[in-house]
Amino acid sequence: MDVLIKGVYWSEAKHIATPSGDIFHIMRKDVESYNGFGEVYISTVKQGAIKGWKKHTRMRLNIVVPSGSIRFVVYNPETKEKAAILISPENYKRLTVEPGIWMAFRGESPGTSFLVNFADIPHDPSEAESLGLDQPPVDHDWQ
Amino acid sequence: MDVLIKGVYWSEAKHIATPSGDIFHIMRKDVESYNGFGEVYISTVKQGAIKGWKKHTRMRLNIVVPSGSIRFVVYNPETKEKAAILISPENYKRLTVEPGIWMAFRGESPGTSFLVNFADIPHDPSEAESLGLDQPPVDHDWQ
Repeated sequence: MDVLIKGVYWSEAKHIATPSGDIFHIMRKDVESYNGFGEVYISTVKQGAIKGWKKHTRMRLNIVVPSGSIRFVVYNPETKEKAAILISPENYKRLTVEPGIWMAFRGESPGTSFLVNFADIPHDPSEAESLGLDQPPVDHDWQ
Repeated sequence: MDVLIKGVYWSEAKHIATPSGDIFHIMRKDVESYNGFGEVYISTVKQGAIKGWKKHTRMRLNIVVPSGSIRFVVYNPETKEKAAILISPENYKRLTVEPGIWMAFRGESPGTSFLVNFADIPHDPSEAESLGLDQPPVDHDWQ
């Protein structure tokens, strides 16, 4: 895994094209960032819409984007590091986000973009903190 | 879970719409059809393209279709039962297919349809059998 900032990593994931359709790898139990299974779900985001900010206190996220393109902005409040990364089928990567990281993301391509989140625990609203876009944990210019 | 044919089941899965985008549940470790985790991947299929026939000898599939629409045809060679089911975001269900079932599927909507397969073992070509569309395990009129 490559380090984006402390607590956020990315790794290559396979995207295999075939004449009748493609295969996109999401997660396998022998992948380095696998940390057990709790839940896997899809979140879609429309072009220009921003979801966030959210910080998980226990969940480790593993995210891929098999359709559209999504810009992720991540912030580590302990190290004060911030980074942004654009993920899409053309730049197909697995983003691993550890607990304690603030994240927001925006749909960047026309129509609807899809992310898949493979998480090590089931969804539990009590383990996540949220902040509105009007009170972000760090300044970010989305333009 | 509801029985489609012996060895093939479907269950309701959640599709939650929100103004900025939707959430599609795929699998959670407390879902009835969860049988351990091996691998999860996406397979896409273009309109009119058919993928199959394939029969797994060890893998149990759990399939959802969060984009497009896909017609699945399944065949149990022991009971000689055959069934077809169309799955899409509008008819969002989790299809569970046990080992020993033949399956083929076709993209039914314009453009590309997406399926997510949550499997209890990692992909292993040696545990699957394939038959070409010109020698199907059961007659099926795709028209």
